[in-house]
Amino acid sequence: MTEKIDLKKYIRNIPDWPKPDILFRDITPLLADRKAFSAAVDAFCALSNGKNIDYVAAIDARGFIFGSAVAIRLGAGFIPIRKKGKLPFTAESEAYELEYGQAVLEIHADAVKKGSNVLMIDDLLATGGTMAASCRLIEKIGGNIAGIIFLIELLSLKGKEKLKNYDARSIITFE
Amino acid sequence: MTEKIDLKKYIRNIPDWPKPDILFRDITPLLADRKAFSAAVDAFCALSNGKNIDYVAAIDARGFIFGSAVAIRLGAGFIPIRKKGKLPFTAESEAYELEYGQAVLEIHADAVKKGSNVLMIDDLLATGGTMAASCRLIEKIGGNIAGIIFLIELLSLKGKEKLKNYDARSIITFE
Repeated sequence: MTEKIDLKKYIRNIPDWPKPDILFRDITPLLADRKAFSAAVDAFCALSNGKNIDYVAAIDARGFIFGSAVAIRLGAGFIPIRKKGKLPFTAESEAYELEYGQAVLEIHADAVKKGSNVLMIDDLLATGGTMAASCRLIEKIGGNIAGIIFLIELLSLKGKEKLKNYDARSIITFE
Repeated sequence: MTEKIDLKKYIRNIPDWPKPDILFRDITPLLADRKAFSAAVDAFCALSNGKNIDYVAAIDARGFIFGSAVAIRLGAGFIPIRKKGKLPFTAESEAYELEYGQAVLEIHADAVKKGSNVLMIDDLLATGGTMAASCRLIEKIGGNIAGIIFLIELLSLKGKEKLKNYDARSIITFE
């Protein structure tokens, strides 16, 4: 078993990035520390406990880092949800709101078997728009959302309200 | 132990993508199959055998999928090498040639401890320019390239010539 590690200590705070008055939570020190990274992947797996997971789906690009490692630990397949224009086969798409305008996420239309259980993973829950669009994509192609897990949740942005139809959990929270 | 799996059977060929006369090798069927994905990660780990790996570094974004899973299996830290403008802390950068123009990759300046051993991972070796730039980044910040492993190597593009100073290996080859 992994020793108890305070994962928050490995998150670096970057003021005013990517723009003024934003405090960015940088996960790269956590990833670089072999014990902290392993403990974080353990924490994702522990929160998925009791669910029968066929696939882990994660969002381009930082989401891939935890999503694929969790898929390997759980013995599940891995489904990449990508920014528009990156997937080569027939894809479904969903738009989500940004501060100014929209962005589009895509998934391969044949990515999951109908009725299979999909665990959704991303590094950060902010407003929840990206994850809500990702869940719609999985449902559109016939998958069942078994749960959603984030490494970090920014509580003040109330992202869980957009995900209230799902079992959404987070490992670390900041106000 | 994983049963013997022919990983090539899980690569989907997409003609004329992203543009005419390119045959794209789509790894998403391999990722989605839990046994094939696990066998591929096993194959990366087997090719890294005998090296003392402190970190696995991988390239934004598909490289993250194998890189983080291999890091977890090997008990190493994970270092993301990102496209320009994505990293929030002090970063080093390296340009590499595209068919038309240049692109830039970045790494956090404090990403590795000096003298540590870094295993480089990406999904595809084409011309080798992206990986050569990534190796320069690791060396610039004081890391030692312990080896390079690709899931797929496109032999006709002779990418290993750009990586001849390193121990570069691949799991699957196509002409």
